[in-house]
Amino acid sequence: MNPATRTTAPTPQEKTMDAVVLERQHEIQVRPVPRPRPVGRGDVRIGVHTVGICGSDVHYYTHGRIGPYVVEDPMVLGHEASGTVLEIGADVTELAVGDRVCMEPGIPNPRSRASRLGMYNVDPEVRFWATPPVHGCLQPEIVHPADFTYKLPDELSLEEGALVEPFAVAVHAVTKARITPGDVVAVVGAGTIGVLTAIAAAASGASRVYVSDVAPEKFAQLAAYPTIHAVDATRDDLARVVRDSTEGWGADVVFEASGSPQAFGSLWEVPAPGGAVVLVGIPVAPVSLDVAAAQARELRIETVFRYANAYPRAIELAASPAVDLGALISATYPLDEAVAAFERGAESRPTDTKIQIRVAGA
Amino acid sequence: MNPATRTTAPTPQEKTMDAVVLERQHEIQVRPVPRPRPVGRGDVRIGVHTVGICGSDVHYYTHGRIGPYVVEDPMVLGHEASGTVLEIGADVTELAVGDRVCMEPGIPNPRSRASRLGMYNVDPEVRFWATPPVHGCLQPEIVHPADFTYKLPDELSLEEGALVEPFAVAVHAVTKARITPGDVVAVVGAGTIGVLTAIAAAASGASRVYVSDVAPEKFAQLAAYPTIHAVDATRDDLARVVRDSTEGWGADVVFEASGSPQAFGSLWEVPAPGGAVVLVGIPVAPVSLDVAAAQARELRIETVFRYANAYPRAIELAASPAVDLGALISATYPLDEAVAAFERGAESRPTDTKIQIRVAGA
Amino acid sequence: MNPATRTTAPTPQEKTMDAVVLERQHEIQVRPVPRPRPVGRGDVRIGVHTVGICGSDVHYYTHGRIGPYVVEDPMVLGHEASGTVLEIGADVTELAVGDRVCMEPGIPNPRSRASRLGMYNVDPEVRFWATPPVHGCLQPEIVHPADFTYKLPDELSLEEGALVEPFAVAVHAVTKARITPGDVVAVVGAGTIGVLTAIAAAASGASRVYVSDVAPEKFAQLAAYPTIHAVDATRDDLARVVRDSTEGWGADVVFEASGSPQAFGSLWEVPAPGGAVVLVGIPVAPVSLDVAAAQARELRIETVFRYANAYPRAIELAASPAVDLGALISATYPLDEAVAAFERGAESRPTDTKIQIRVAGA
Amino acid sequence: MNPATRTTAPTPQEKTMDAVVLERQHEIQVRPVPRPRPVGRGDVRIGVHTVGICGSDVHYYTHGRIGPYVVEDPMVLGHEASGTVLEIGADVTELAVGDRVCMEPGIPNPRSRASRLGMYNVDPEVRFWATPPVHGCLQPEIVHPADFTYKLPDELSLEEGALVEPFAVAVHAVTKARITPGDVVAVVGAGTIGVLTAIAAAASGASRVYVSDVAPEKFAQLAAYPTIHAVDATRDDLARVVRDSTEGWGADVVFEASGSPQAFGSLWEVPAPGGAVVLVGIPVAPVSLDVAAAQARELRIETVFRYANAYPRAIELAASPAVDLGALISATYPLDEAVAAFERGAESRPTDTKIQIRVAGA
Repeated sequence: MNPATRTTAPTPQEKTMDAVVLERQHEIQVRPVPRPRPVGRGDVRIGVHTVGICGSDVHYYTHGRIGPYVVEDPMVLGHEASGTVLEIGADVTELAVGDRVCMEPGIPNPRSRASRLGMYNVDPEVRFWATPPVHGCLQPEIVHPADFTYKLPDELSLEEGALVEPFAVAVHAVTKARITPGDVVAVVGAGTIGVLTAIAAAASGASRVYVSDVAPEKFAQLAAYPTIHAVDATRDDLARVVRDSTEGWGADVVFEASGSPQAFGSLWEVPAPGGAVVLVGIPVAPVSLDVAAAQARELRIETVFRYANAYPRAIELAASPAVDLGALISATYPLDEAVAAFERGAESRPTDTKIQIRVAGA
Repeated sequence: MNPATRTTAPTPQEKTMDAVVLERQHEIQVRPVPRPRPVGRGDVRIGVHTVGICGSDVHYYTHGRIGPYVVEDPMVLGHEASGTVLEIGADVTELAVGDRVCMEPGIPNPRSRASRLGMYNVDPEVRFWATPPVHGCLQPEIVHPADFTYKLPDELSLEEGALVEPFAVAVHAVTKARITPGDVVAVVGAGTIGVLTAIAAAASGASRVYVSDVAPEKFAQLAAYPTIHAVDATRDDLARVVRDSTEGWGADVVFEASGSPQAFGSLWEVPAPGGAVVLVGIPVAPVSLDVAAAQARELRIETVFRYANAYPRAIELAASPAVDLGALISATYPLDEAVAAFERGAESRPTDTKIQIRVAGA
Repeated sequence: MNPATRTTAPTPQEKTMDAVVLERQHEIQVRPVPRPRPVGRGDVRIGVHTVGICGSDVHYYTHGRIGPYVVEDPMVLGHEASGTVLEIGADVTELAVGDRVCMEPGIPNPRSRASRLGMYNVDPEVRFWATPPVHGCLQPEIVHPADFTYKLPDELSLEEGALVEPFAVAVHAVTKARITPGDVVAVVGAGTIGVLTAIAAAASGASRVYVSDVAPEKFAQLAAYPTIHAVDATRDDLARVVRDSTEGWGADVVFEASGSPQAFGSLWEVPAPGGAVVLVGIPVAPVSLDVAAAQARELRIETVFRYANAYPRAIELAASPAVDLGALISATYPLDEAVAAFERGAESRPTDTKIQIRVAGA
Repeated sequence: MNPATRTTAPTPQEKTMDAVVLERQHEIQVRPVPRPRPVGRGDVRIGVHTVGICGSDVHYYTHGRIGPYVVEDPMVLGHEASGTVLEIGADVTELAVGDRVCMEPGIPNPRSRASRLGMYNVDPEVRFWATPPVHGCLQPEIVHPADFTYKLPDELSLEEGALVEPFAVAVHAVTKARITPGDVVAVVGAGTIGVLTAIAAAASGASRVYVSDVAPEKFAQLAAYPTIHAVDATRDDLARVVRDSTEGWGADVVFEASGSPQAFGSLWEVPAPGGAVVLVGIPVAPVSLDVAAAQARELRIETVFRYANAYPRAIELAASPAVDLGALISATYPLDEAVAAFERGAESRPTDTKIQIRVAGA
């Protein structure tokens, strides 16, 4: 094959490109890093267009670590990305130069025991962008396996494409929940993941979704969804609201998306007998589990870790009329203002759902 | 308790009321039948408002039997009903006089083995309206167990309430399918149940639903659902359409809603590896099962029989903005024109989805 | 029907019979109580043969309460029972006088929402023997619904029949676990329920079962089961033992059967990625849940509450050669030595698995 | 690493070795074929010890094809194999020279969509031994991916190791069945797969297993399993026997392991309401499916294709005391008598369960 036919761009002569680098806790710089590795047979080279800022990116910035993952060397941030294919490897058949794509940020060992079982997300060998010591994708170009690069349908913009990653978290959580058509659902926490989970649940058969949060400003972005109901946790108790609206039965499925230890005190009162609780938020320390209360309703508790095989489904749902990811973008910064973007992320404004960095053209 | 507070109507002095009676094959009369039994402690007396005509009602009319169920004595027809509560029994607490309701037409023995397992629909002792020798509900009043009488939410009209029964069939089928968020779904047959199944699937997480039929007129009523795509089976092959739009993968879930033996020839080519086929239609004779083809994709085949525990879910979904049952009503006849209504039902016009009989006021 | 043909015993002329009554915390008496109610149409009258002492019976004795259930009035103890049918009600067809039976001690409302869904165990209206204010069955005769009375197969003695109740707890837990053939299983705690759960798991497809306890004496009763391996928790760590014997993978299913808060500290390290943890033991207070650790393996956590629809399965398994319930009976006391039996139960000797009271003939 | 430490055998100087070659329909020769490819980084070289003859091997011999798979060129037969590791590739860590192993004969593309979902058995790219045009393993040495080579525990002989392959079919079928502890199970057909399925079901929680066949000689090998009951189909009807022994309820799970079209006529009468039918046998043509009968019990029908992720489970179960694979070996032939072995296989003697060829030392 003539490689020239497989790329729109000549091999760049420059050896470096500007990336958003977390030098150490509290210090981000936009500065040159080496260009990505050459494209292997199963790889694609992508011009990065948009990268969303995740809470984990901000947390590495503000704390320098997340649990056992410690930033010991400078690390490129970012893992919620979209872009355009610039070059494809010799074995790549399902993607072409010019395709608009989004990228799944975690690459497992396909031969591991977990991968063979279909749960590659819990493969301990997964290499995940912007998780030390693996660099992220907040840079103009990236080389990535084609198997984990997904074409965007026409219905999705590149900005929405960069929201597929957190939406995949929500879709995976809803998948594990096994929602039954007509279920009443509750979501604890209206942060980005809580909001996305509520939207995914509403698009997946939930007849009503009750979302609670202590910051009522967050509910604004849910106003367009008629089956999603806001519960102001500063005034109302979610368990009581759900029970009152279900003749005392409770929610068929409850998503814990706050990660707040306090949420676990009353969590077990929200679900119905035989219901499910899906733990999506990640508390920083062990929480309280009222076993006897959970047993009295014979609850099923599902825990989720990122996602596996969720991207195709998340893209399908995101492209459907039931979901509008674009409305969740609160602000967009150019690459050279990445520090300002991260500063704003660190503010945790309740009116911000998703802050993105526009990389292309930077 | 003062019984007077529990009823709006005095006990009727008349001993009879006019009902739609199938006297024998090919002969329906609207003629007097005895009034219903007195209200027991757990019963309600309902003023019937609307009754939909089901294919089974028409089939008893045109054929005098369905499989082992033979019309040997005159039988009141109808089982898709809504109405208003006129009187409640002494033990009834969840319904009140004046409530707008719909009724689940099959009453199982709650102590049977099947009922205890939660699948009361397969309890052989079920007594189901308008299934010989059990009378149906096409009459002004009916007495029914409160446990199988459901309050309609404000969002649903009484006409829509009479559509909950066939919608429950669809919701039950979708429940058994275990749709995963973002699934691609195919439905074979756009009769009433096929249309309702497509709508239920679209409201339950399917990202795209492909519905095939040989009568393209039937697709008109699906035009309002952007994720439902019509496949004209006179020109296109469903398996090919689905495969072309899924990169050759196939449909995650396929519903067989035609009951046509011909449909089973190519049915096994529609689903994806690991997919499910849900058999909703009821062929009149055994059909062809290509075991080797099904095995090559390791398909799961689910069969469904009416529904169990589906009414609350069906009502919830029907009341949500994702579903518009009212748009499926093709024509409404007064009780005294019931014969004309059944004649039209027997015509099987492709533009007819649901014909109803307005009982109230007759 | 001639009632005389339906009973072997004339209606007793005595008005009372001796029962084991918990008068209040710390005080048990064997003293007269009224004879049971007359047999209703769906009831059977049973001559009680054997009643096992459950930890809950002992706990009411030593503490006067279990959580919200407080002994405020004298209460007959006992709920693990077998016996012989003495009389049957007019509607009873599946049992006959003379049948050897065991009895399911919780009677739900068959029309409740939970019951209709097949999970009658979580019906809040369940009336369960020896749970205040409901009397138990430690008395010569009892009247019980035939629906919750099960014929014992020839393979099971009446003493074993009285062990079906705790075995049903184990079978229900194993059912909820959804063991896959060949699974490696771990059980935390070798009390009665832990031992029974290990046996049920070994009979249900587990290839190896690791049971840990701090009292190695308890393992003696498991010696007959070649696939059950004892882990002395005073010397070995269950998570380490399991990991060492599974190439680091972990247990596919873990049953927490100790109810000990301490057990929850390391519990989340025992299961494999994608594994399940079934919470059978009932801690008296909320415990610690390491959400992040559970998420890293994407664990499913099931909670269980007694059992539903488990008796027929438990009886089938107990009668099979893979299970020997009789070997678990540590001691048997006559009814008039019930106080001694309870005193011994309160000692919690590690060598005691099940203490029974022989009622018949008392 | 010093390669010398990774092999017991010098690279053979001979270029060929004797294999069992199906030259064309009706003609097998034991004649020289090229030695296997060199060991790749993830491969192992195995000295083949025993290879079982499968019905598919015999069918290629007698018919020259199986459905779409046609023997157009000479093909080495055999896919049920055990052996000893002779050499390991540079990346292999979990196997060592000298290990006794069995080999999974189908190698999927680990990056395919099906593989990523955990169902690599339905990956269309699978290369499976002795399925045209892929050669089998009836030869002294084979090179195989270490990922699909499994160490045998001490409890299993090499002869039993060669039975793991068909046992994996049975374990996979039982896994898909989702047997609940205490289930009553029926198996149609007591051929090799039927017998292995019955044994796997009995070891996986079935309380009773009814196996029917028209050749009562086949039941001899099941006599050692007390929970497996033989039903002579020439005299008894399986559906009737099951119903009589379950108070009319039926079997919770039915395995169709005969592949006989006749079996499907009455198949749908065997299962209980809500039961499952697992189609393991592969009929050569489409069969009859009585949809209405299946719906009346709301049956779930599972189809299976070989197995995925079943080898570790099958080995675990085979090594447990509940299973004795060795007893199923009917006859063993040396490699140079392979033609006689296949002739006998073609006779289909009812007393033969498994014929094996001893390769080592040939």
